[in-house]
Amino acid sequence: MSIFGKFAALTDRYDRLREVGADPFAVKFDDIVSSVEGVVNGKRTLLFGTNNYLGLTFDEAAKERSIDAIRRHGTGTTGSRIANGSYKGHQELERELADFYGHKHCMVFSTGYQANLGMISTLVGKDDHLFLDADSHASIYDGSRLGHAPVVRFRHNNPDDLAKRLKRLSDQPGDKLIVVEGIYSMLGDTAPLKEFVDVKREFGAYLMVDEAHSMGVLGRHGRGLAEREGVEDDVDFVVGTFSKSLASVGGFCVSSLDGFEILRLASRPYMFTASLPPAIISSTLSALRTLRAEPQRRDKLAANSQRFYAGLRNAGFHVGPECSPIVAVIIDQPEIAVAFWKRLLEEGMYLNLALPPATPNSSAFLRSSVSAAHSDEHIDFAIALMTRIGREFGLLPAENNVCPFPAVAVSAERLGATAAIARALPPAVGAGAGMA
Amino acid sequence: MSIFGKFAALTDRYDRLREVGADPFAVKFDDIVSSVEGVVNGKRTLLFGTNNYLGLTFDEAAKERSIDAIRRHGTGTTGSRIANGSYKGHQELERELADFYGHKHCMVFSTGYQANLGMISTLVGKDDHLFLDADSHASIYDGSRLGHAPVVRFRHNNPDDLAKRLKRLSDQPGDKLIVVEGIYSMLGDTAPLKEFVDVKREFGAYLMVDEAHSMGVLGRHGRGLAEREGVEDDVDFVVGTFSKSLASVGGFCVSSLDGFEILRLASRPYMFTASLPPAIISSTLSALRTLRAEPQRRDKLAANSQRFYAGLRNAGFHVGPECSPIVAVIIDQPEIAVAFWKRLLEEGMYLNLALPPATPNSSAFLRSSVSAAHSDEHIDFAIALMTRIGREFGLLPAENNVCPFPAVAVSAERLGATAAIARALPPAVGAGAGMA
Repeated sequence: MSIFGKFAALTDRYDRLREVGADPFAVKFDDIVSSVEGVVNGKRTLLFGTNNYLGLTFDEAAKERSIDAIRRHGTGTTGSRIANGSYKGHQELERELADFYGHKHCMVFSTGYQANLGMISTLVGKDDHLFLDADSHASIYDGSRLGHAPVVRFRHNNPDDLAKRLKRLSDQPGDKLIVVEGIYSMLGDTAPLKEFVDVKREFGAYLMVDEAHSMGVLGRHGRGLAEREGVEDDVDFVVGTFSKSLASVGGFCVSSLDGFEILRLASRPYMFTASLPPAIISSTLSALRTLRAEPQRRDKLAANSQRFYAGLRNAGFHVGPECSPIVAVIIDQPEIAVAFWKRLLEEGMYLNLALPPATPNSSAFLRSSVSAAHSDEHIDFAIALMTRIGREFGLLPAENNVCPFPAVAVSAERLGATAAIARALPPAVGAGAGMA
Repeated sequence: MSIFGKFAALTDRYDRLREVGADPFAVKFDDIVSSVEGVVNGKRTLLFGTNNYLGLTFDEAAKERSIDAIRRHGTGTTGSRIANGSYKGHQELERELADFYGHKHCMVFSTGYQANLGMISTLVGKDDHLFLDADSHASIYDGSRLGHAPVVRFRHNNPDDLAKRLKRLSDQPGDKLIVVEGIYSMLGDTAPLKEFVDVKREFGAYLMVDEAHSMGVLGRHGRGLAEREGVEDDVDFVVGTFSKSLASVGGFCVSSLDGFEILRLASRPYMFTASLPPAIISSTLSALRTLRAEPQRRDKLAANSQRFYAGLRNAGFHVGPECSPIVAVIIDQPEIAVAFWKRLLEEGMYLNLALPPATPNSSAFLRSSVSAAHSDEHIDFAIALMTRIGREFGLLPAENNVCPFPAVAVSAERLGATAAIARALPPAVGAGAGMA
């Protein structure tokens, strides 16, 4: 048996999936022609499974700034931030991110994954405690594994459960760090942040919010869930990424806590990796400025999200618990979900698929995400296409019937374990789980 | 006490370092004007502390290809490789890397750090064993911590010690994976790879070689140490990075073992992160082609390395155990090393500094690296400058004396623990340790 023998069960599941002619985890885009359109298997395809929330991947200013940076500063730094890899641009981006969030400090990491790894593995140690939402993204779980703090998981989006667990450990010395996300990447639900802040205050814990999917999306200025909920002063650490609203790659953490800067010499995923190339730093900086200068993109994104979420719900689909740019359709029979996903791609629509065993109750998700760059026509095309295929597969009533059931929104609680399993437990076959 | 109280000792050491007016870990380049020249504090500075071995950061073909990719495919993919983040370019780069190494399979990761994390944490599990050289890079140690396999450390570059430890566990079931590096990043020494291959064969273990610092540097075709030693068929996994010879950011693993492809659905640091942007993929592909097409760059790099290493050794400096593009000067008194580093920067030469407690015997390293883009004049300037300052500080005999001692090369064994501590144990103040 080879070293890959340990993946026999996963390989078997994957082979069976491919036998039916669909491989949702090996889609290759032959071309990308706009923020929301690509070419797959020679067919022009509408993108409904990206994290391109503000539609900035083809932003002219970002592209030109990035091109200029390559011409002036080359293709890479060939060094880490604590050696030769800190250029003026890295510091400029850190200053503007800190300014945007109204915080004193900012560290930029080479990926969003490494931002969570770097912060979580370093901030708390063996004498501390780390409290994670059960549905946390894989990068948060991996950060907890890389670090040395005992990990306490609490029920998804459940401040009471968190309080109970903090209370049990209230006589323990050391720091307590709570980590939650602004918008959860699989079902698009938001954290009850005000209640989490109350709990944090009661127990003297620190609070980190990962605004990866909410930066540029929520809040008047686009700072995320904490802004929308008016609790930014109570969030000790904001973590975010450049690979969603800011349309590049990388991650960051901002904070106003004194002493923060020492993390540059303590956080291994920050220290032991090459810094981001000039092209990336420059397009990110440009996108951040656009995010700040053009709130109408957030308005358009919100309108698109509402149009898509309501459209699918009104068609009779089982959708996630609340409206956000992430819109999940829950399908009880995985084999239908696979066929549905395949049909959508054949018809020119790409979205993400999450399958058992990564999902509970043997159900599956079709995970869409909306972009500000989608037109009303794009949204309506997607709704109509999904409705038509939903009818073909008997998931929705036939066209000439009046919808016999009310719009169904599956509660986050019912699906509580889903995202956690999909994102946290390897080996997991889940394309949606790959949303970084 | 704040959450940063745990870093009090590190903060204190760092504050004391900065009090003497030198901060080797916060150098900012105001401008980068060529592969080997930047501007620091308004002064044009020769770069001797990068990993830009082939001098390709300003390569015209790489820049133009990168620019073209931005224009055609935008600033980022906003998705993971198993969702919407696999473009034609990602597959093309994987194919060409596999072809370059004569292997069947290749996976591209978003950083070199994540390549080691992703491979090491996934290939072996709790029922297996992982054998690491004690001086392994931080990313290898972090990969071992993220994974679940028991870790066995063997003495740096010591096949006999590895064999002894494998023998002790020879009746244990499960897979055994040995990880070594082509060139070690602190002292520039190479692994005795033929002997490691003998040991691997004897015990039926798998062998992974991290060619991060040797790709493009060693071997007739630039594939690294395994090529130079003629043992490529016995290396099961080659890991490498794009942020050194290939002048961008990212990492990869190649292998010919059947079953490899399932890692795309099992390796969390591969799955749960955004894929590399088109600009990065394209410049990397271009640099790989240049690496293959222009062996003269390797010849020039080898000549430069020899000129610099011999020059410093003949001046009387304590240098590392063998000649490679990484040239370390060992200085017994750290305070002199700090002052030396500061003087070099003031005089227009940048290199990396590694300080206690990250180093043994309270000594320190001045870590240089040579590029094919250095001219003979650059090398001679650096040797002359370091010699002059060495004399000023009393490290070398005065100019009018004939050198009274023979050239000294400090053995890797004497310094065996150094790199391991510098790179593996946080918190560590070590700029050289940041060489990703």
